[in-house]
Amino acid sequence: MDVLNSTVNKIGEINEELYAIAQKRLDNLTKPPGSLGRLEEFARRLVAITENKTPILDKKVVFTFAGDHGVTEEGVSAYPKEVTAQMVLNFIRGGAGINVLARHAGAEVVVVDIGVDYDFKELDGLMKMKVVRGTRNFARGPAMTKEEAVKCIETGITLAEGYAIKGYKIFGTGDMGIGNTSPSSAIAAVLTGKKVAAVTGKGTGISDDSLRKKISTIEKGIRINAPDPKDAIDVLSKVGGAEIGGIAGLILGAAANRVPVIIDGLISTAGAMIAFTIEPKVSGYLFAAHNSVEVGHKAMLDAMGLKPIVDLNLRLGEGTGAAVAMLIIEAGLKIYREMATFGDAGVSDEIIN
Amino acid sequence: MDVLNSTVNKIGEINEELYAIAQKRLDNLTKPPGSLGRLEEFARRLVAITENKTPILDKKVVFTFAGDHGVTEEGVSAYPKEVTAQMVLNFIRGGAGINVLARHAGAEVVVVDIGVDYDFKELDGLMKMKVVRGTRNFARGPAMTKEEAVKCIETGITLAEGYAIKGYKIFGTGDMGIGNTSPSSAIAAVLTGKKVAAVTGKGTGISDDSLRKKISTIEKGIRINAPDPKDAIDVLSKVGGAEIGGIAGLILGAAANRVPVIIDGLISTAGAMIAFTIEPKVSGYLFAAHNSVEVGHKAMLDAMGLKPIVDLNLRLGEGTGAAVAMLIIEAGLKIYREMATFGDAGVSDEIIN
Repeated sequence: MDVLNSTVNKIGEINEELYAIAQKRLDNLTKPPGSLGRLEEFARRLVAITENKTPILDKKVVFTFAGDHGVTEEGVSAYPKEVTAQMVLNFIRGGAGINVLARHAGAEVVVVDIGVDYDFKELDGLMKMKVVRGTRNFARGPAMTKEEAVKCIETGITLAEGYAIKGYKIFGTGDMGIGNTSPSSAIAAVLTGKKVAAVTGKGTGISDDSLRKKISTIEKGIRINAPDPKDAIDVLSKVGGAEIGGIAGLILGAAANRVPVIIDGLISTAGAMIAFTIEPKVSGYLFAAHNSVEVGHKAMLDAMGLKPIVDLNLRLGEGTGAAVAMLIIEAGLKIYREMATFGDAGVSDEIIN
Repeated sequence: MDVLNSTVNKIGEINEELYAIAQKRLDNLTKPPGSLGRLEEFARRLVAITENKTPILDKKVVFTFAGDHGVTEEGVSAYPKEVTAQMVLNFIRGGAGINVLARHAGAEVVVVDIGVDYDFKELDGLMKMKVVRGTRNFARGPAMTKEEAVKCIETGITLAEGYAIKGYKIFGTGDMGIGNTSPSSAIAAVLTGKKVAAVTGKGTGISDDSLRKKISTIEKGIRINAPDPKDAIDVLSKVGGAEIGGIAGLILGAAANRVPVIIDGLISTAGAMIAFTIEPKVSGYLFAAHNSVEVGHKAMLDAMGLKPIVDLNLRLGEGTGAAVAMLIIEAGLKIYREMATFGDAGVSDEIIN
């Protein structure tokens, strides 16, 4: 708990005093005030988060945390659980959606085995930081012990610290884990107070019958484990999963180091909700990448006051939405850094009425 | 009219038979079917538009058409009309929003003087294709003659043909012209049948009083000129502007050459409505970049059956939204071209239920 506690203690509010300084520069660029809408918002926020009046995003990284889930025994997913390990190998070879989109965004992909039920060899690009070999089935008891849950979070913190020190300027989060929409919806239900049915969707694509079964499985898991909504570690340990804990830790570690984080879809946002419940100040450091097809996603974004950047009907996970959003956030920063001012350009900034 | 007529005759439907072939490849990539949502839609559409099973977007360009508007005499804009020419010079120097965002998207910017009320020197990067030296005030009579309107469209066609031959694979459209939301809203009202007040917004940022004056000016212009909504050339000539005609021509020329076009906001979409009224098949070649703050924009997108890619509260024009959308469309194409298939990756594509 020491790493977790000292990290949380380091997290400050973002520096909103810098909004005015950033906005002054934005308003002096050769465009009508506010006409670049949310691109201007992204630039302002990067300035306030980093406390740097001219931030730059030269080193970018998406962390894809992978873990397995005992709850797949209950038939809650469309794919067999072996796919988690197979996809990790696909990430390492560069063939997955996140590899393609991160390349497009100029970001590296760091794949983290935090809980996969498979023994990987040493592989370039794979961080072997396994805390559990798959979680236990939360429909029958706690997914993890409290110690395991804390270790997952501290693993994320360690990664955030390390990459902040190496000079990475923005993090994206992503996930891989067959079955992981179930713990994510469970977290959404417990931490937003909404009914399980209102925050549970079809994941990678199950039938209506399977969706009903998934909902009742999650309801049963919450009933049996009775997670305390005021205690994020309790919630994480009761329903899992390891990758969600890793994401929560990454966010806490990033906020402690004033690094902005782009959260992907449902699973990453469940991780963010865990971090937010531990320390609400983290929301200032977060960008919500996209509006996921998964219904539980919006409930959690609303709880944290975050507005998604794109709405492209994505539901893949891995960090794919975060990579797309990274391109747009960087567009806002380039506007801020590279556009000419009225003075530079000899353009009239007189407004007639 | 010969160039216009022969171009329109060349425009065919997009090849929807290729959707199935593209979708088959998309469904064989290492992801649940459909899980990359609209990114998959963009890839499918690029295949159907280009009739190329593996299209590539190696050469990209945004055309920013500039023109002045006699209707600025009526006090419909927040900025003096001299700003049009000043901004053209800013584009040439690379300091404007469109320069920054096109660089980010890996696209060139081609600036076209099609109707600016200023005599530019020869400048690298400026296409001097002036048809009118500003339009006439459409609140007092026709903005252009029919011959001028056709010449604006044919100028756009010539550019599209030239850049298609040079191997550019996707075009973005953009505009610069103080006062040009007024003719655009006039076009929206005439061609969608909606009331002027329902399709007129505050442009670069006028007051409520000025908005009322702008609406009554546009209403007066439509009453005096009585444009025929079935005759797009009549509409274009009566309310203008030159840059809107250039954009319409660019779209017709692109469709005739099977080049996809990303249309920016209100002004570009008014150009698209002119092209669509001449030949409805063009809508198959169009991508709507974003959901503009300007209220007339959505009415025209709906009329053409187009759904915006991003919603970032943009209202700058120049092609800035098109440049952002280009990044996302290319993301979809890279997914299609670069992701591993289940077979390549040794990932199970068995679906359990």
